Amino acid sequence: MAVGSGELPPMFPVKGFRLATGCAGIKVAGRKDLVIMALAEGSEIAAVFTRNAFCAAPVQVAKAHLGNTSIADRPSRYLLTNTGNANAGTGEQGLRDAQHSCASLAAIAGVETSQILPFSTGVIGEPLPMEALLGALPATFDTLNEDGWADAAEGILTTDTRPKGASRQIDIQGEVVTITGITKGAGMIRPDMATMLAYVATDAQCSSEYLQQALNNAVNKSFNRITIDGDTSTNDSLVLVATGQSGPALSDECDLAVLNDAIEQVCIELAQAIVRDGEGATKFVTVELIGGASVEECLKVAYTVADSPLVKTALFASDPNWGRILMAIGRAGVADLDVEKIKVWLDDVLIAEHGGRAATYTEQAGQQVMDKEELTIRIDLARGSVSETVWTTDLSYDYIRINAEYRT
Amino acid sequence: MAVGSGELPPMFPVKGFRLATGCAGIKVAGRKDLVIMALAEGSEIAAVFTRNAFCAAPVQVAKAHLGNTSIADRPSRYLLTNTGNANAGTGEQGLRDAQHSCASLAAIAGVETSQILPFSTGVIGEPLPMEALLGALPATFDTLNEDGWADAAEGILTTDTRPKGASRQIDIQGEVVTITGITKGAGMIRPDMATMLAYVATDAQCSSEYLQQALNNAVNKSFNRITIDGDTSTNDSLVLVATGQSGPALSDECDLAVLNDAIEQVCIELAQAIVRDGEGATKFVTVELIGGASVEECLKVAYTVADSPLVKTALFASDPNWGRILMAIGRAGVADLDVEKIKVWLDDVLIAEHGGRAATYTEQAGQQVMDKEELTIRIDLARGSVSETVWTTDLSYDYIRINAEYRT
Repeated sequence: MAVGSGELPPMFPVKGFRLATGCAGIKVAGRKDLVIMALAEGSEIAAVFTRNAFCAAPVQVAKAHLGNTSIADRPSRYLLTNTGNANAGTGEQGLRDAQHSCASLAAIAGVETSQILPFSTGVIGEPLPMEALLGALPATFDTLNEDGWADAAEGILTTDTRPKGASRQIDIQGEVVTITGITKGAGMIRPDMATMLAYVATDAQCSSEYLQQALNNAVNKSFNRITIDGDTSTNDSLVLVATGQSGPALSDECDLAVLNDAIEQVCIELAQAIVRDGEGATKFVTVELIGGASVEECLKVAYTVADSPLVKTALFASDPNWGRILMAIGRAGVADLDVEKIKVWLDDVLIAEHGGRAATYTEQAGQQVMDKEELTIRIDLARGSVSETVWTTDLSYDYIRINAEYRT
Repeated sequence: MAVGSGELPPMFPVKGFRLATGCAGIKVAGRKDLVIMALAEGSEIAAVFTRNAFCAAPVQVAKAHLGNTSIADRPSRYLLTNTGNANAGTGEQGLRDAQHSCASLAAIAGVETSQILPFSTGVIGEPLPMEALLGALPATFDTLNEDGWADAAEGILTTDTRPKGASRQIDIQGEVVTITGITKGAGMIRPDMATMLAYVATDAQCSSEYLQQALNNAVNKSFNRITIDGDTSTNDSLVLVATGQSGPALSDECDLAVLNDAIEQVCIELAQAIVRDGEGATKFVTVELIGGASVEECLKVAYTVADSPLVKTALFASDPNWGRILMAIGRAGVADLDVEKIKVWLDDVLIAEHGGRAATYTEQAGQQVMDKEELTIRIDLARGSVSETVWTTDLSYDYIRINAEYRT
């Protein structure tokens, strides 16, 4: 199940960024499970990773390679992704396997091992099937091309039901600049990243400082504002690459703002695509907090509502059981909440005020909103002027099925 | 579904504590949904309530009545409980309804309104059906008797599949003192209480100061150490009564410690009964944290593991997917966690150490533990000497069914 049509939009190639997708046999034989991405010489790269204390071997290796002291001389040139196995909870062996994978691709590509960044997603705690992975590298490497986005979008999936991509072309000083990205979900999704991988590339010319700043901004409006089940993974990684092969060298504030905005839009579209394809999702729900005194309290309430199993099962049942929303707001742990002042809407229907059901509310009006596949829960805390938005799904039988049968 | 046989144990009457159960028609016609409890004159009472900011009308009224300035002269004499409707999210009308219920029972019993404490559990946000409730009061009142525990245990249920009770008799200075209690769950269960009501009574003679202290101690070892779905409710209430009609007047430290321990044991048995009958539960899982540096971090990790949907679905599937346990530990937000030192066991089977699968671990050994209906996840953080235990269940199809169809 998934919400909306989910068709991959047109994926504009990014000059200087090539992709190749192969079948290594790590997942089911014949299924795409290996993706190589090649960054043209001179590319800049920025990345954010999971904050889970048990971060996977590839995350540790990728961080080390990015932080390599010789990075100025030997910047990252290849991204190596496998699915079907997360290489997490694999101890020392896992680290050796991740490094060995990088070394093997480096030998084929003729670069240093530290110029390869590894990424893995899939089952935790099983050793990485090295023979299968390494065996598929040469043939896959040979197919690198700038039109490989759609295949790669399939190659990085695990329990996702469909590929996820977003692409924009913008005009900067009369020249076309492209931003294209792909991502995968679909459970273990929560702030501070999730079981997700995302790769966004642009051919814009910009500094690495700008790029990391643009990535941080975009993440806090997109990937760090979604939740499926409140769990966060050991492997989350988001990479933003700028190849610098199109458009002018960017330094003008206005131009950078335009690029910033386009990167943010691509990231929001990708993050929302993860939620729409959340495990067992039948609803796409926007939780909008307004009137908060701080970002922190807005997010506390928004996530408590978005992650509440009782709210999520009511959403699955299309049941306007707004009492559960009040319950979740009330347990979010915001001090001195004045429940008399709080208002709650389903889309434009005011459902609760003065600590109870709104006088104007009718079950029919609430039901009409709840019957929709996409809806907004809007909550006014009436304590200030800060607002925040997060996106989530319902909790369905299929979520249980997918996660109970994951390894069977 | 529920774990274990769940038969109600022998429920010893408590001298001076009478119970009556009726059918008011608030739930399905003919189902017990009204319980009155009567405290003999001179009884002491202690209570704890939900910390949800949206606390229900009966909770507000009960707190007000307990805090009444005339309480020394006119202490609580009756507890009035209805199920089928939580009288929560009902605003001003809800408060008036709760007060009106108390006034009606007070008139029948010949006491002051402030001597009645009201309790409600059931659906949130619907007005309390006053006519049905008030109509059933007189006939129910007439049946008050000291042997009413088993009926009352049924009368307070909502989505619970079975009544829950615990009873102990202890010897104090050669005299028998009884402690008996009942409780109801079954979802919205988490620390700081939950959608739960619990009533424990003893005929011991003790001061009200001692009683509140004994209750606070017991709660932190029982009701505040369980979780079903991480949600907490608007109505949780736990009451401890001492009628003072058996045994000597207690002041000896040893005697008080014996009583303390018995109260704690009754509360633990009741709290565990809630978990065993958790919504959709097929497993009873003990999460035991050892080697923590503080209570706070032990509970943080224990609850993150216990509430993780991915851990819970693996438990439902009897899948020893220990990677998900590591993931949950890692995202619990404990600073400077040294994952190298952490060890995890399923019962006595060491499953993870040094950041990965234990060398001695076999899938077969893990599977044998996972196949059990009751099991322990033991986690050693290797940071200190604090330990804490919480109890939880798995996450099953039935949890979704129960909560998606709750109002249909």
